[in-house]
Amino acid sequence: MGCPVGVGPEIILKYFQDRGRSKDIVPVVLGDINVLRRCSRELGCGQTCIPWSPGDPVPAEGIPVFSISTLDASALRWGRPDRDTGRAMADYIISAVRLIQAGILDGMATCPISKMALHEAGYTFPGHTEMLAHLTGGASPVMMLAGSRLRVTLVTIHCSLADVPSRISVASVGRLIRLTHQALVADFGLKSPRIAVAGLNPHGGEGGLFGNEEAVAIVPAVEEARSAGLDVQGPFPPDTVFVKAAAGEFDAVVCMYHDQGLIPFKLLHFKDGVNVTLGLPVVRTSVDHGTAYDIAGKGIADPQSLAAAIQLAGTIACSRRRNAARVYAARGLC
Amino acid sequence: MGCPVGVGPEIILKYFQDRGRSKDIVPVVLGDINVLRRCSRELGCGQTCIPWSPGDPVPAEGIPVFSISTLDASALRWGRPDRDTGRAMADYIISAVRLIQAGILDGMATCPISKMALHEAGYTFPGHTEMLAHLTGGASPVMMLAGSRLRVTLVTIHCSLADVPSRISVASVGRLIRLTHQALVADFGLKSPRIAVAGLNPHGGEGGLFGNEEAVAIVPAVEEARSAGLDVQGPFPPDTVFVKAAAGEFDAVVCMYHDQGLIPFKLLHFKDGVNVTLGLPVVRTSVDHGTAYDIAGKGIADPQSLAAAIQLAGTIACSRRRNAARVYAARGLC
Repeated sequence: MGCPVGVGPEIILKYFQDRGRSKDIVPVVLGDINVLRRCSRELGCGQTCIPWSPGDPVPAEGIPVFSISTLDASALRWGRPDRDTGRAMADYIISAVRLIQAGILDGMATCPISKMALHEAGYTFPGHTEMLAHLTGGASPVMMLAGSRLRVTLVTIHCSLADVPSRISVASVGRLIRLTHQALVADFGLKSPRIAVAGLNPHGGEGGLFGNEEAVAIVPAVEEARSAGLDVQGPFPPDTVFVKAAAGEFDAVVCMYHDQGLIPFKLLHFKDGVNVTLGLPVVRTSVDHGTAYDIAGKGIADPQSLAAAIQLAGTIACSRRRNAARVYAARGLC
Repeated sequence: MGCPVGVGPEIILKYFQDRGRSKDIVPVVLGDINVLRRCSRELGCGQTCIPWSPGDPVPAEGIPVFSISTLDASALRWGRPDRDTGRAMADYIISAVRLIQAGILDGMATCPISKMALHEAGYTFPGHTEMLAHLTGGASPVMMLAGSRLRVTLVTIHCSLADVPSRISVASVGRLIRLTHQALVADFGLKSPRIAVAGLNPHGGEGGLFGNEEAVAIVPAVEEARSAGLDVQGPFPPDTVFVKAAAGEFDAVVCMYHDQGLIPFKLLHFKDGVNVTLGLPVVRTSVDHGTAYDIAGKGIADPQSLAAAIQLAGTIACSRRRNAARVYAARGLC
C-alpha cells in the first residue's frame, strides 16, 4: 500500500474499480483496512474491503486486504506522514517479502513510500529498493523502467551528473548488459533479446572529439558481451537510440545515467511506466511516481502506473515459473 | 543545396514535388542546376529546373535555381564529397548570406553539409553555424531545435558530458534564457513566452544531494530573468519537464547539455524537426539531419525536415518584418 497518507490507498481503490473481472492475476493488498475504508468513503467510490489472511482463499468480490497496521484512520491527514505511518509502511514491505519467500504470494507491486518517513521510523535505507535488497540477502539490485514501447536500464542512478563519467567502466557497463539480458530472458520471456547500449557523450563521443568513455569503457564492455554470445549493439549516439528502440529495433536500452534513460522513458510512458527491480530473488515492480502528497486524498490520482506494475509483476512471476519448470524438467526433476 | 553529393538535391526535388501550389513562401534554390537535373533524371521524378538570377522574377512553374557552381554532374558520385563539392557548398552559403543582406532574399533554410569537405576546401569552421556567424560579423549564435510540440535551446552543445558541469554558470544560463525569450518574441511572434529551465542533475539535484549546479548557477539565473520581467520557471527535474512542455505548459525548454535537449526532441520530432540559429542577423533554419551519404542518391531520403525548415524560415522572416514595421511605426518612421 506504500505510504498510508500518500496516493497509494486511492490508486489501489481505483485499480480494483477499473480491473473488471480479469482473473489472470489475483491481487491482494498488504496495508491497512481502516485507511482504505476511510479513503473509499471520502472518494465515494463504494468499494468494499474484505479482511484477508495469508493462507485463506481470496474472496471473489471486494478488495482482499491483509491489514498489517492498525493506524487511527480518522486521525490521519493526507500528505502528512509521521513515525507511525513510516513504521506501518515498512511493515507492509517486510510482510510482502516474507509471504513471497514462503511461497504464498508470487510477487509484489509497490505503491510509493516516503523516504523521510521511513528514516523517521528508524529505517535508514535510501529507499524501497535498498530495503528489499537488505531483506532478501544483500543483492545489488538494478533499476529497469519498462513500458510497452521502451525499456531502459541505468548504469548510474542517483548521483550528480559530474560524478557520472568516473562511474562508467568496463565492469559497470558489462554488469548492466548482463543483468539486462538475463532479465529480458527470465522475466520477459524473450528468447534472444536485442540490447542497445547508449553512448555517454553527444554523438557517442564523435570519435573521441567529445570524450573518450565510449572507447575506454563502453566499446570493450559491448565487445565482451558479444563474445559471450549476447545480441548487443552500440554504443549509439544517445539522441537517436531511443527512437530506434521505440520503433521496435531493440528490446531494451542500457543507459549511462538517470536522465538519459528517464527523459525518453517518461516522454513515452508518463502515465503507464513501471519500475522493475532486477537482481532480486523476489519479483518486484513499482509504480513510476512518488507519494504525490500534494494531491493525496483529492481523488485525482491516476491508477494507470499501478495497474501496469501489477500486470507486469504477474507477467514476470509467470515467466520465472515457466523458466523454473523448464530447468526442473531439464534436470529430470519433474 | 548543401553538399552536392549528400541528400540535399534529392530532398529539394521532393520538397518542390510535394508542396503543391502554396504561395505564402517563394523558395529559390542556391546550388547547382546540373546536379539537380541529374538527380531528377535518376529519381525519375520529372521535375524541371529553371535558371534564376537574383533580381529576376521567380517563375511560376518548375524549380527556380540560382546555379552558383558548375560541377561536372556526370562525374560526381553520391556520398563521395571532394574539394570541388566542398568549395561549391561553401559558395552557396556565402551567396545566401549576401542575397539576404542585400534584401533580395528574406532568409535561408540550409541542407546538410560535410564538415570534412568544408575543411578540405580550405574553410576551417567547425560547421555551418560558425561559418554563418563569421560571415555576418562574428555573432555568437545559439542552437534552437523547434517542432510543433517542443522547442529546446542548449546552454552547452558539442563538448563531452564531463565538461558540461563546469560550463554551467549564471552567465551562460542567463544568456540562453534571454536569447530564448528574444527569439520566441521576435521570431515566433509570441507576446509573453513561457520558458522552462531544466536542471542539470537527476531530480534537479534533490536539494543538493546530487550536485549543486542548480543552487549555484541555475536558480540565480532564473531569478535574474524573472526580475527582468521574463516568464521563466525552473530549474525543473529534467525527466519530467519535457512532458510538461510537450503538453503545452511551456513554449520552450532551456537545456543544460546536448542530449538533455536532443533526446526528447528527436523522440517527438525525428522526421520534422528544425534547427534554428538564434543570435544571427540573418534568418537561418536548417534541416535536423546530416548529409546521410549512406542513402544519398537512392531515392529514399525524407524531405519533411526540409519542408519544416523552409516553412519556419518563412514564419520567422515574416515575424521579424512585422516587428520591424512595429518598431518603425513606434518611432514615427513609417
